[in-house]
Amino acid sequence: MAMVCLSDFEAYAKKYLPKIAWDYFAAGADDCSTRDENILAYKRIRFRPRMLRDVSVVDIRTKILGFEISFPVGIAPTGFHQLAWPDGEKSTARAARAMDTCYIASTYSTCTLEEISAAAPGGLCWFQLYIHRNRTASQQLVRRAEALGFQGLVLTADLPYTGKRRDDVRNGFRLPPHMKVKNLEGAFEVCKMSLLDPSVTWNDIYWLRSLTRLPIIIKGILTREDAELAVQHGVQGIIVSNHGGRQLDEGPATIDALVEVVEAVRGRVEVYVDGGIRKGSDVLKALALGAKCVFIGRPALWGLAYKGEEGLQDVLRILQDEFRLSMALAG
Amino acid sequence: MAMVCLSDFEAYAKKYLPKIAWDYFAAGADDCSTRDENILAYKRIRFRPRMLRDVSVVDIRTKILGFEISFPVGIAPTGFHQLAWPDGEKSTARAARAMDTCYIASTYSTCTLEEISAAAPGGLCWFQLYIHRNRTASQQLVRRAEALGFQGLVLTADLPYTGKRRDDVRNGFRLPPHMKVKNLEGAFEVCKMSLLDPSVTWNDIYWLRSLTRLPIIIKGILTREDAELAVQHGVQGIIVSNHGGRQLDEGPATIDALVEVVEAVRGRVEVYVDGGIRKGSDVLKALALGAKCVFIGRPALWGLAYKGEEGLQDVLRILQDEFRLSMALAG
Amino acid sequence: MAMVCLSDFEAYAKKYLPKIAWDYFAAGADDCSTRDENILAYKRIRFRPRMLRDVSVVDIRTKILGFEISFPVGIAPTGFHQLAWPDGEKSTARAARAMDTCYIASTYSTCTLEEISAAAPGGLCWFQLYIHRNRTASQQLVRRAEALGFQGLVLTADLPYTGKRRDDVRNGFRLPPHMKVKNLEGAFEVCKMSLLDPSVTWNDIYWLRSLTRLPIIIKGILTREDAELAVQHGVQGIIVSNHGGRQLDEGPATIDALVEVVEAVRGRVEVYVDGGIRKGSDVLKALALGAKCVFIGRPALWGLAYKGEEGLQDVLRILQDEFRLSMALAG
Amino acid sequence: MAMVCLSDFEAYAKKYLPKIAWDYFAAGADDCSTRDENILAYKRIRFRPRMLRDVSVVDIRTKILGFEISFPVGIAPTGFHQLAWPDGEKSTARAARAMDTCYIASTYSTCTLEEISAAAPGGLCWFQLYIHRNRTASQQLVRRAEALGFQGLVLTADLPYTGKRRDDVRNGFRLPPHMKVKNLEGAFEVCKMSLLDPSVTWNDIYWLRSLTRLPIIIKGILTREDAELAVQHGVQGIIVSNHGGRQLDEGPATIDALVEVVEAVRGRVEVYVDGGIRKGSDVLKALALGAKCVFIGRPALWGLAYKGEEGLQDVLRILQDEFRLSMALAG
Repeated sequence: MAMVCLSDFEAYAKKYLPKIAWDYFAAGADDCSTRDENILAYKRIRFRPRMLRDVSVVDIRTKILGFEISFPVGIAPTGFHQLAWPDGEKSTARAARAMDTCYIASTYSTCTLEEISAAAPGGLCWFQLYIHRNRTASQQLVRRAEALGFQGLVLTADLPYTGKRRDDVRNGFRLPPHMKVKNLEGAFEVCKMSLLDPSVTWNDIYWLRSLTRLPIIIKGILTREDAELAVQHGVQGIIVSNHGGRQLDEGPATIDALVEVVEAVRGRVEVYVDGGIRKGSDVLKALALGAKCVFIGRPALWGLAYKGEEGLQDVLRILQDEFRLSMALAG
Repeated sequence: MAMVCLSDFEAYAKKYLPKIAWDYFAAGADDCSTRDENILAYKRIRFRPRMLRDVSVVDIRTKILGFEISFPVGIAPTGFHQLAWPDGEKSTARAARAMDTCYIASTYSTCTLEEISAAAPGGLCWFQLYIHRNRTASQQLVRRAEALGFQGLVLTADLPYTGKRRDDVRNGFRLPPHMKVKNLEGAFEVCKMSLLDPSVTWNDIYWLRSLTRLPIIIKGILTREDAELAVQHGVQGIIVSNHGGRQLDEGPATIDALVEVVEAVRGRVEVYVDGGIRKGSDVLKALALGAKCVFIGRPALWGLAYKGEEGLQDVLRILQDEFRLSMALAG
Repeated sequence: MAMVCLSDFEAYAKKYLPKIAWDYFAAGADDCSTRDENILAYKRIRFRPRMLRDVSVVDIRTKILGFEISFPVGIAPTGFHQLAWPDGEKSTARAARAMDTCYIASTYSTCTLEEISAAAPGGLCWFQLYIHRNRTASQQLVRRAEALGFQGLVLTADLPYTGKRRDDVRNGFRLPPHMKVKNLEGAFEVCKMSLLDPSVTWNDIYWLRSLTRLPIIIKGILTREDAELAVQHGVQGIIVSNHGGRQLDEGPATIDALVEVVEAVRGRVEVYVDGGIRKGSDVLKALALGAKCVFIGRPALWGLAYKGEEGLQDVLRILQDEFRLSMALAG
Repeated sequence: MAMVCLSDFEAYAKKYLPKIAWDYFAAGADDCSTRDENILAYKRIRFRPRMLRDVSVVDIRTKILGFEISFPVGIAPTGFHQLAWPDGEKSTARAARAMDTCYIASTYSTCTLEEISAAAPGGLCWFQLYIHRNRTASQQLVRRAEALGFQGLVLTADLPYTGKRRDDVRNGFRLPPHMKVKNLEGAFEVCKMSLLDPSVTWNDIYWLRSLTRLPIIIKGILTREDAELAVQHGVQGIIVSNHGGRQLDEGPATIDALVEVVEAVRGRVEVYVDGGIRKGSDVLKALALGAKCVFIGRPALWGLAYKGEEGLQDVLRILQDEFRLSMALAG
């Protein structure tokens, strides 16, 4: 079977992953409306292609927070990569470095920050964190990440509680016994989402700021009001995200929310977006609407499920080729 | 089979109820457009979720007409509960009391008001009535309800005649011989809808007012004009309802009608809504659009069909959990 | 099988009619978009139901051009009724008289005007005509109809040529040898549509006017411009029609066109509509939008196919009951 | 099987062509949204049919750039006709001449310009060209075409690179060994799209102008901005086209783009459109929106696949009959 577009990887993953893993990665909250809307919203956006421009050279390199990457597609934070491939996040980090782009490692990784960092030294890596009830644990994670050379901190803002993903409830989803949320092993006896602190507010950004010199990127913003608050509280970047449609169902598609966030931010910080990217032309649409870079979640997992590091590189390379072609054809 | 969301109860009921009972509960008028539109209209309403608010404590208790309930979901009046579960409305009343919410008992119950009242003493119960051609019969029902401690009267306004529900006509729907519309046994020899008085007008509210000190809630309002009339005629509450899409087909979805009713009422009386509630987030949408409380009809029957009192509690508990989570995730 | 709504008759006819006859009656032009749009457009129109009005007496009688009918649903002109029932148009005429409504007999009847007239003396019957290249033939038809007591002339304006109905072309549709277009037997050797005169213009209304004292109703108007022309040329009534979607595909649904025609006519002549009526509530919608009466085409044929005169009465009775109920429920 | 409408030819071609050929002709870029939207957009456009106009004579002849054709439907440039029929473009040229219309021969023909020209002497033929990296090759093609009597040059502007057609990638599409892109045999050793020059700009129109006295028609314009540029650079005609949805996916449907192009051009040059024409009424819509003529791509190939020259004539004749009928029925 030829792997021609991202849907081919999706079909492969659906066929070869254990059902419980596929369901976990695919899950959306409630009726999965927002998960699906993320994709549909891209299709509603139409190009106005221009002709007869010199497109013999198409430069797709860009910078995020000053770091140059080979094209404006990074890897969004998702958990439990060992469910997709034995080497887990180590493969992800290697693929990102090989493709010269940014990888946001999740707190809920099945490899430690140390392992991820060692797997791809010199790669551009950010660390995604939640704020835990146990603030000391969060503080330690931040310091570990900074010490290991991670170059950005991504604070997830949309998960005071976990969304209701019906299939996970039906499956009684939990990690297989041989996998661990290794980053949290020292800090907590049991890994439970309820360790997250639902009382976190904007003021906690100041606390986070006091812990580290790394740039702080906030992930999960969907409205102009919250975008304004994010800027006021001094973040360096915003990822417009609805957690892949896994949190509150029936909110906006991220590409639609991007428009109002970009408008509110007025260039004061960089804005990124994740959710629903399935083609190179989706990347172009996001950039045309003001994103500096996009991040892919599920497609990266499908790539891992296909052939680990190599499969993820395939996914990224396809997106890169499609993005370059879209730019040329759109003029 | 895990019962994770209300659709699971629907699937169960469809599978295990006798076809004639399922059809009766599921029936909508004519093409069932309005029945289905009730649900679809909720899906069209989108949240704008806000982040980083302290949602460690989420208070979902509320009051309707001064009575405190544990969360803003009550049980709408529907007929013939013995078709769903042997104990019929007695189970319904018990489940409502156990979950600390309001139950509106229908005139077309298969248990008497006395049985319902005795089944769950101390529970919050309203009585739903029609105005019959035989006004004495209606008067007696009102007095019985008041004497038994029912705390509200719900006048159904949208049934001068019964809507055309095709499946019921095809099935020749009638109650099995061992079930009776017990509340009307003394008053009428035969239970026929045609005993209802199609000449009822707004002035009959005054007549009803003269019979009782109970608050009067009018059910079946769909327009601003009728909402204004209801307020002028002195009702205490309005239930925006289209009878579950069982009366005039191709009228508005209730959640859409709610908006204009709330606007017309301007806070002078409480406004509730029923029809199409299938998730906790639907409850949140209705409240955000001005409803003080919602009522569920068919989902309550599915709960009864699943495990009687216990099944209905499951349904209510799921809605409660989903509602609380939606509030937290929406910020 | 219980015949509960018009779709039941449709299903029956589809099952029991010869395929060539079913296809002929069901056919729409080209992609059948307009045929289907006629129905869909009704579904998009929503009621605003009003409550607590005295609907104990609902009067559904009406008058068209001064003739009283039992309810505002007549029978549109359609051809070849013997394809549906052996007695053909004679059964149609009897059913219309029995239900006390108007029947528009088609030029393309398989019974003569004389037979139709004799089958239901005293019934309200209009005659539908085309203008033929052979004007004498048209003139003779008009005079025959007038002499036989037909009480209106319906001039079809939308058939200068026959629309392209793909299934009829595939089937090589033609009448079985034992059926004839009897009204034209004297006038033409062979019955071919091409005998119709495509050069007919508005001035020919004056010519028609000169032949008869009967009221002239023009059928096939879809725009305000043509409605104005029709009034100026002295017709007594307008039937908004797209020939059941059998002529130009992808024009407007008739219920949508009705609005602009009614607006243009400003009450100067009566306006009727056909196409897409499937429920009593459709009739109410058409009347609410300004039609004085509606006409049914295919549903009448389904009734004939079911049980001849009796089946057509069933269809009319169902529409009548549904219409009366809709009026009551809409307040 | 009767060939009644263009879909019949499509079904035939899908059934009888080799899969690799069918896929190549059917292919759209990426998700094929634009390919399908080309058709859907026509369905959204509605007629306002007028009645009682003298339509006994309907003249459908027209002129494009001064050349008279029998009706406003020409044959768009498409490649590799031998994939559909052994005689390839020779049959196409003959059918076009037989039906007295215009054929735009593609650079990627499987017959030489000389063969095409000789196959149908006296027919109206334009030549479609790309600008190659090797300008001399392009220049030679232009001179050959002019010398052979081609009467127009169609410059394709929307293919700096080939769009991503997934099925072609999966199939590893290439011409069978016995077919050649004969026009380029002298000029290039291997036929590869990458021979096209992606650095072409508007100024190259002047270069093209300097090579030939033939009228230049630019194909692939979708925006008012580019339409204005085309006029300013002195082209004689514009073909609104998205390459059958084979280049940038998710741009506008051509019939929608036509409106803005016609508006921008304000009659200064002729405007044509291709893409999505499936019925005679589509032609009428395009003309009503300002096109002087339409061109058909895939339907011509289906006609060839059916019966070569004769099949293509069938396709054109059906379109002609449908177009004439639509004109008459629309008044």
